[in-house]
Amino acid sequence: MRAARLHEYTDDMSEGLTVEEIDRPEITRSDEVIVEVEGAGWCQTDNHIIEGMWEQYVPQSLPMTLGHENAGIVAETGNEVEIVEEGDPVICHPVQTCGTCRACRQGETMYCENQSFNGLTTDGGFADYLLTNERAVIPLPDGVDPTDIAPHADAGITAYHAAKKAVRKLNPGDHAVIVGIGGLGHIGVQVVDAMSAAQITAVDIKDSALELAEEGGADHLVNPEKEDVREFVDSVTDGTGAAQVLDFVGADVTTEYAPDITAAGGDHHIIGYGGHIHEPAQALVNGEFSYVGNIVGQYTELQELVALVEQGDVNLHTSRYELGDVNTVAEKLEHREIDGRAVITP
Amino acid sequence: MRAARLHEYTDDMSEGLTVEEIDRPEITRSDEVIVEVEGAGWCQTDNHIIEGMWEQYVPQSLPMTLGHENAGIVAETGNEVEIVEEGDPVICHPVQTCGTCRACRQGETMYCENQSFNGLTTDGGFADYLLTNERAVIPLPDGVDPTDIAPHADAGITAYHAAKKAVRKLNPGDHAVIVGIGGLGHIGVQVVDAMSAAQITAVDIKDSALELAEEGGADHLVNPEKEDVREFVDSVTDGTGAAQVLDFVGADVTTEYAPDITAAGGDHHIIGYGGHIHEPAQALVNGEFSYVGNIVGQYTELQELVALVEQGDVNLHTSRYELGDVNTVAEKLEHREIDGRAVITP
Amino acid sequence: MRAARLHEYTDDMSEGLTVEEIDRPEITRSDEVIVEVEGAGWCQTDNHIIEGMWEQYVPQSLPMTLGHENAGIVAETGNEVEIVEEGDPVICHPVQTCGTCRACRQGETMYCENQSFNGLTTDGGFADYLLTNERAVIPLPDGVDPTDIAPHADAGITAYHAAKKAVRKLNPGDHAVIVGIGGLGHIGVQVVDAMSAAQITAVDIKDSALELAEEGGADHLVNPEKEDVREFVDSVTDGTGAAQVLDFVGADVTTEYAPDITAAGGDHHIIGYGGHIHEPAQALVNGEFSYVGNIVGQYTELQELVALVEQGDVNLHTSRYELGDVNTVAEKLEHREIDGRAVITP
Amino acid sequence: MRAARLHEYTDDMSEGLTVEEIDRPEITRSDEVIVEVEGAGWCQTDNHIIEGMWEQYVPQSLPMTLGHENAGIVAETGNEVEIVEEGDPVICHPVQTCGTCRACRQGETMYCENQSFNGLTTDGGFADYLLTNERAVIPLPDGVDPTDIAPHADAGITAYHAAKKAVRKLNPGDHAVIVGIGGLGHIGVQVVDAMSAAQITAVDIKDSALELAEEGGADHLVNPEKEDVREFVDSVTDGTGAAQVLDFVGADVTTEYAPDITAAGGDHHIIGYGGHIHEPAQALVNGEFSYVGNIVGQYTELQELVALVEQGDVNLHTSRYELGDVNTVAEKLEHREIDGRAVITP
Ligand SMILES: [Zn+2]
Ligand SMILES: [Zn+2]
Ligand SMILES: [Zn+2]
Ligand SMILES: [Zn+2]
Ligand SMILES: [Zn+2]
Ligand SMILES: [Zn+2]
Ligand SMILES: [Zn+2]
Ligand SMILES: [Zn+2]
Ligand SMILES: [Zn+2]
Ligand SMILES: [Zn+2]
Repeated sequence: MRAARLHEYTDDMSEGLTVEEIDRPEITRSDEVIVEVEGAGWCQTDNHIIEGMWEQYVPQSLPMTLGHENAGIVAETGNEVEIVEEGDPVICHPVQTCGTCRACRQGETMYCENQSFNGLTTDGGFADYLLTNERAVIPLPDGVDPTDIAPHADAGITAYHAAKKAVRKLNPGDHAVIVGIGGLGHIGVQVVDAMSAAQITAVDIKDSALELAEEGGADHLVNPEKEDVREFVDSVTDGTGAAQVLDFVGADVTTEYAPDITAAGGDHHIIGYGGHIHEPAQALVNGEFSYVGNIVGQYTELQELVALVEQGDVNLHTSRYELGDVNTVAEKLEHREIDGRAVITP
Repeated sequence: MRAARLHEYTDDMSEGLTVEEIDRPEITRSDEVIVEVEGAGWCQTDNHIIEGMWEQYVPQSLPMTLGHENAGIVAETGNEVEIVEEGDPVICHPVQTCGTCRACRQGETMYCENQSFNGLTTDGGFADYLLTNERAVIPLPDGVDPTDIAPHADAGITAYHAAKKAVRKLNPGDHAVIVGIGGLGHIGVQVVDAMSAAQITAVDIKDSALELAEEGGADHLVNPEKEDVREFVDSVTDGTGAAQVLDFVGADVTTEYAPDITAAGGDHHIIGYGGHIHEPAQALVNGEFSYVGNIVGQYTELQELVALVEQGDVNLHTSRYELGDVNTVAEKLEHREIDGRAVITP
Repeated sequence: MRAARLHEYTDDMSEGLTVEEIDRPEITRSDEVIVEVEGAGWCQTDNHIIEGMWEQYVPQSLPMTLGHENAGIVAETGNEVEIVEEGDPVICHPVQTCGTCRACRQGETMYCENQSFNGLTTDGGFADYLLTNERAVIPLPDGVDPTDIAPHADAGITAYHAAKKAVRKLNPGDHAVIVGIGGLGHIGVQVVDAMSAAQITAVDIKDSALELAEEGGADHLVNPEKEDVREFVDSVTDGTGAAQVLDFVGADVTTEYAPDITAAGGDHHIIGYGGHIHEPAQALVNGEFSYVGNIVGQYTELQELVALVEQGDVNLHTSRYELGDVNTVAEKLEHREIDGRAVITP
Repeated sequence: MRAARLHEYTDDMSEGLTVEEIDRPEITRSDEVIVEVEGAGWCQTDNHIIEGMWEQYVPQSLPMTLGHENAGIVAETGNEVEIVEEGDPVICHPVQTCGTCRACRQGETMYCENQSFNGLTTDGGFADYLLTNERAVIPLPDGVDPTDIAPHADAGITAYHAAKKAVRKLNPGDHAVIVGIGGLGHIGVQVVDAMSAAQITAVDIKDSALELAEEGGADHLVNPEKEDVREFVDSVTDGTGAAQVLDFVGADVTTEYAPDITAAGGDHHIIGYGGHIHEPAQALVNGEFSYVGNIVGQYTELQELVALVEQGDVNLHTSRYELGDVNTVAEKLEHREIDGRAVITP
């Protein structure tokens, strides 16, 4: 089968992956599932993986097929699989868990001690077929297209996971600030809107992104290249600050907002990454705010997100590309030329 | 009356405060309370105030009487005060709140929009008398000595506040790491021990501090000058990391522990300050840990701490000094020569 | 001034209250506030008070002016009141709290140890003027009419309080069942809809009420006189049951739904009353569901509800009556002839 | 192998079970585990099962081997089992879960949609061997004896599960009332003591049980045959009531305590069963308390309880009986003649 694989870390996106023929994966355990990939979202994280940015955090052995945002049709199942069968449309949580470690028992998919992460630590979905397991697939409801929903497998649940944490602490009259209205932030706005009655302020340097935020339910829009974000938030919140900040950028300049725009007792969620946090400890003490780390989401959170999609509460703008276009997509994303989310259709 | 007052910010602790005669405060509102001070704890924060470190965070007008950890006997009350009367022993929460802003309505003492903070934004308790109000005093149970309990008004509830947040997330078998076993950390150990069944690891560069931690309930002790803290925590937690870290130091070197010693989904609580946090956003994403800010505690938390003291669950080692000794105490603390907590007895 | 007062408990609603002249209340404490009443909602609880149903639960001394759902214009203030002044439009939380007991410190308005409850334990708002205090009034935003919003002071926050508890446990894809779409239930539907992405099933024996529920955001409607509620819930939830049930009726027949329609780990909220709970302990064990008591809501919850009203998330259908019509209103409510909520305009 | 089996429901405990020879179970799935039973606790629920009291709640087909509180040594494993191997000592959570339904994903062991419950819906551990699976076994730490710990598999985690819910809401100074100091209540006292700093009041009609409670950490003891429980609780709580009540009896007379002894906003946990709840809805409204159902506990809660046992925080008094004594044990329990917990040692 065909697969787009990483052989060597590089900063040159034009030659990041190689599309080549490899063997189709085979079932060797009772709980495994092979999915014929219909859609595989391309993610900023794919660029980061190609650059070698995850090498120090997780075990990676090259060559590896990338692609962690997958959906498709079940092609084959292990002999004890019960929740799906051949022909079922599914979305694939990126993490294949063991089901027996303490983290798995607690539903903490991301903390599984024996996990494989599609396209990050094991072969992913930029290929004709993907090998995963029963604990990682979610059957899709009627009327939901695998190709359309694929990016939710990571972009979606990452945004949902952070937004759900935020929503639990947002009362009517409270304010949420959402920084960066790209693939993830755009979903974050819709989730906060659907699951709370808080006021939403969207922050982005592209006016087209702010328009997207407004369609998604944002109440206030601010472009940092035109207005002072700190003054803007101070004004819309009557000086109280935002109870919850969702930072989908994670640059130095955005993590620095926290002491000035976060309400007492509030949270600045780190979802995007690339920059760093650099604050005096005293700032966190004085404002009693927190920097809250966020990584992807649980299997059950992906179920909840599928419910939101089915209900029409969350929409995703996607554009489709062929498997041979992977490097073109990587370059376009680098230059911010992708509108919505690019989905590879192997 | 006599009062120890700050006239000018300085780094020279030997001449930080001036003991002088000023007018005794007077009752001007129906809810005010005047307390004859029996004990006023000296705090690392007093040194920081003298150095001018709080000037940029809160409104301060000099000269000001310092002292935010106060207890004593009610000397006079406004005409609508109901919960105390002349002669009652009380501990004074450092914050005088308005009782009518939204934060006050939520019990968030520290976020009151119209607050005065004893010895930080208004005159404090290094004096014969302290002016406060009904919303800031807690009557003491029989058998609790005001001088002994005074430091709990800040040191105590700050430790308690952070420990209570941590305890809510600590299950039996989980691990808490407590960094810095000084005045606050020493209370933190006892609170975590009394309120959870978690394993406690104490970290300090003084062996005498570690012994104090062991008496307070710590299960494991590590001196960073003798052992590698990261390896130690990795070993006692079987590689899982600590679910909760209470950082009573807040130096660069201690905030840097977080990515290596905090369990997935865990919290590194910032309580001490002086240093800064400097981490890539990706570290928080990868480990899904949080830096959690903490400031003092609520009035109701001070009630809970008084209950712990009354039950014998928390003990505090104090040494007593006269009002004229304030600068000596400041210098001793600077050189880490205070054992337990110094209490000024005006 | 005129006031509608209860002199004797009676089951005959046609002569429950007497409209008479009494002295206007006077300010005697620094924090008191006198409000000229613009609107005072009539509530099922007023009927229950007239019947003597609250006598065993709270201290009542007759004669007493009823009316606990009040809004109006500030007419006079005590000399230390700061958050309102003469001429300000306000809604009145029904409970006048002390501000200094532990419950008040925790924001638990309803548990204040020294409270007065308008129209239940002290004179209420079916009168030209109401005596209350600074801790009970909330200034209204521009554009919100006191007469329109008055019923939210009790009907509104009672529904909001229970709905907020429920919403915290409702994930997308979960189901909420709302039993009884009268004055409170109708608000409950809108609150759950605004603050969650759960599926809502409304239950009522009046089809007109079900239509109102649908406008408010209900997804499924069931009339127990036409369909079997247990089968209906089983069907819409695919056999899982409803994660949260809000019972605004509280009759024997509705509390009996719990073991059959509540999901494992779910809650059956008791808000309406009149009937009783009668279940074997084993039923609660087997299904691990809870019967959750609910009484009115906190002051801060009324602030949150005012924000929802201001945002247009919650609408209330009201009909207006003069003070002289109180007994007519009581009778109409008894015979279910009130559409939406009756508001007395003294 | 030998097994003690139920052939017919009966109220006569002297002939409830029949000890007979049946086939040893065999491994048929990759995740199955066969345990040689070292200890199997006898439980009040076993009496209830023999009486037919669970027939209407769960699917049961007779004959069935009873015994749901099992521990022993792994004798054989399916070919994909990874967490244990032959010879490992284990405690067996009574529920064999599927690992793939939504409840399993959330860690809600008890709500698994495809579960088998040892000795309740499938053959249990009053036998030489027990068939279970990898998701139900917990390896025991060194020094923990399987026979001693066996009853924790149900009695222990049921008490722990309810106590853990209670502890989350108990602050220092709050009061917990524990009703019924038998096998479960005795563990409940120790868990609340280890995991909170609340005051504990134990209620039992046997003075020897109250003595056991005192050893376990109870602060106040009351025998309802000698003192009025309502007055006692009112007195020790200064009129506030108990924040949390753990009812290990679940009789009419104990559920009736709730309106009188539970603090505003508090919970009355139903753990024991046999009687029923019968209260006016208005009582729950007025006091805003809840009746909270509780069933057994999660797999991860059993891990936490094993940690408590290993740390020495929870001790269990057991007496050992041979497999042939099962009916004698049943009769003794019926007549309250068992001290601590009876463990069958096949
Ligand atoms: Zn991604
Ligand atoms: Zn795992
Ligand atoms: Zn201090
Ligand atoms: Zn305030
Ligand atoms: Zn730096
Ligand atoms: Zn009402
Ligand atoms: Zn009060
Ligand atoms: Zn009955
Ligand atoms: Zn049992
Ligand atoms: Zn399951």
